[in-house]
Amino acid sequence: MQQDSNCGCGTKGACEGENTVNSEESMHAPEKLAINNFSSAKNVIAVMSGKGGVGKSSVTSLLACGFRRKGYEVGVLDADITGPSLPKLFGVKGPIEGTPFGMHPLESSTGIKVMSINLLMEQEDEPVIWRGPLLGKVVGQFWTDVVWTDLDYLFVDLPPGTGDVPLSVMQSLPLNGFIVVTSPQELATMIVKKAIKMAQIMNIPILGLIENMSGVICPKCGEEFKLFGPGHGEEVSKSFNIKFLGKLPVDPNLSKLCDQGKIEEYESSLFTDFIPGQLEAKGGDV
Amino acid sequence: MQQDSNCGCGTKGACEGENTVNSEESMHAPEKLAINNFSSAKNVIAVMSGKGGVGKSSVTSLLACGFRRKGYEVGVLDADITGPSLPKLFGVKGPIEGTPFGMHPLESSTGIKVMSINLLMEQEDEPVIWRGPLLGKVVGQFWTDVVWTDLDYLFVDLPPGTGDVPLSVMQSLPLNGFIVVTSPQELATMIVKKAIKMAQIMNIPILGLIENMSGVICPKCGEEFKLFGPGHGEEVSKSFNIKFLGKLPVDPNLSKLCDQGKIEEYESSLFTDFIPGQLEAKGGDV
Repeated sequence: MQQDSNCGCGTKGACEGENTVNSEESMHAPEKLAINNFSSAKNVIAVMSGKGGVGKSSVTSLLACGFRRKGYEVGVLDADITGPSLPKLFGVKGPIEGTPFGMHPLESSTGIKVMSINLLMEQEDEPVIWRGPLLGKVVGQFWTDVVWTDLDYLFVDLPPGTGDVPLSVMQSLPLNGFIVVTSPQELATMIVKKAIKMAQIMNIPILGLIENMSGVICPKCGEEFKLFGPGHGEEVSKSFNIKFLGKLPVDPNLSKLCDQGKIEEYESSLFTDFIPGQLEAKGGDV
Repeated sequence: MQQDSNCGCGTKGACEGENTVNSEESMHAPEKLAINNFSSAKNVIAVMSGKGGVGKSSVTSLLACGFRRKGYEVGVLDADITGPSLPKLFGVKGPIEGTPFGMHPLESSTGIKVMSINLLMEQEDEPVIWRGPLLGKVVGQFWTDVVWTDLDYLFVDLPPGTGDVPLSVMQSLPLNGFIVVTSPQELATMIVKKAIKMAQIMNIPILGLIENMSGVICPKCGEEFKLFGPGHGEEVSKSFNIKFLGKLPVDPNLSKLCDQGKIEEYESSLFTDFIPGQLEAKGGDV
């Protein structure tokens, strides 16, 4: 099997057609979609990783909480259609009803607007067994058909991987940029680099990198130890010239609040002060 | 927005056409693909979760190691095209070359055959930016175009979610069944239930459930504590009538071996004795 010069993947023949970012469809990328008529969003920031289970959803939610505490109008768009987490973290439950003006997101206890496929399902554990292009289309509808009203910040929680949904979000939403989440394993580092390179190929700025799960504190003796070896977050940030935003330990208390739908009660100075300050510093428009 | 009776997701109009499992295409599901001419596989077992980052790849690899130690011919097929982990865990590196007979998988130090998209790439951190249907097609090629030779067990490491790749694997590979991996968070439990329900819809048996990351042992004081709250693995197993195969703690030593490409050196009685015994017990054919 020969290397295919288009994609470097070696799966000759498979990489043709409209399925790849290098194809004609992608070169003449679709126009950005217009947000819902009754809505606006000054800043749209997506949280990505490439790797699953590194805490994208909790980082997305904590970012939203941090900005909300500073008084901004904030929304979160759950772009993980087959593994949606945000309603559970914020303790909101559907199903929601549509109106002639579009779908109305649910509001969390502090007033963060939440939209997720799970808010449209009768049962939260019902699977969404859809092929990728449809997944991307639904995420587009969460932008065009949801009455967000006027937001200062919309945070988009991406699924793992570099497939349909991240591609559709990059092509069709007016992103200010990405926050990248990594974890200390070398394996995660490799996969996160794929996501960073995808953002570069698509010309979307990366606003910063957060290393999650960098260690854990023993509740008995107070010892902080590494769960997954030494982290590489700062190293990756340096090598790609990305701002390193900080490290987060695994905190059983955060897991507990997430399971209870009370993530807004979690106190993290990183998200309350440091990160909003860092992102606001870029001229108010991220 | 009205509920769509086909899928229960409420995104009216979006669920039509060939993208959903309920569509005509899926009802008349494609024939199973024939394995490569020079190969056979007595048992094909996929490892799934729905949720990312719960350890599907390490469970897949440890299963493979457990069966290999018992003397079986074993292969691992990395179906996670946008987040491939297996080459790193087994310490094998591409790029591999094709032959007129197909692609030859690489062999790990104990003789496990490994196939992954990363073995076809020049650089392991290069992203694969493809839409879903293509991802499913490549996984099919890993079955039809790879010279596995004669295997007793082929383990398939699925990506997170319930989208294209799990769907294609379920439709086109002759699976004996799934091993489901969960982690203790309630959030993971909800998403894992989606995956279990997908397997049920597709009529694929679930051979057992493993709860990963069920706790961690402090290296200083030896205290074992819960990282993510109490697990729900046994409860989920019972409610779906699935065999509960066991719990695995987070083990920094396993992470280290994974990062070094030496997962085969990891000792786990669960995988060396217990699980092969359990799966063999089903009449030798899983």
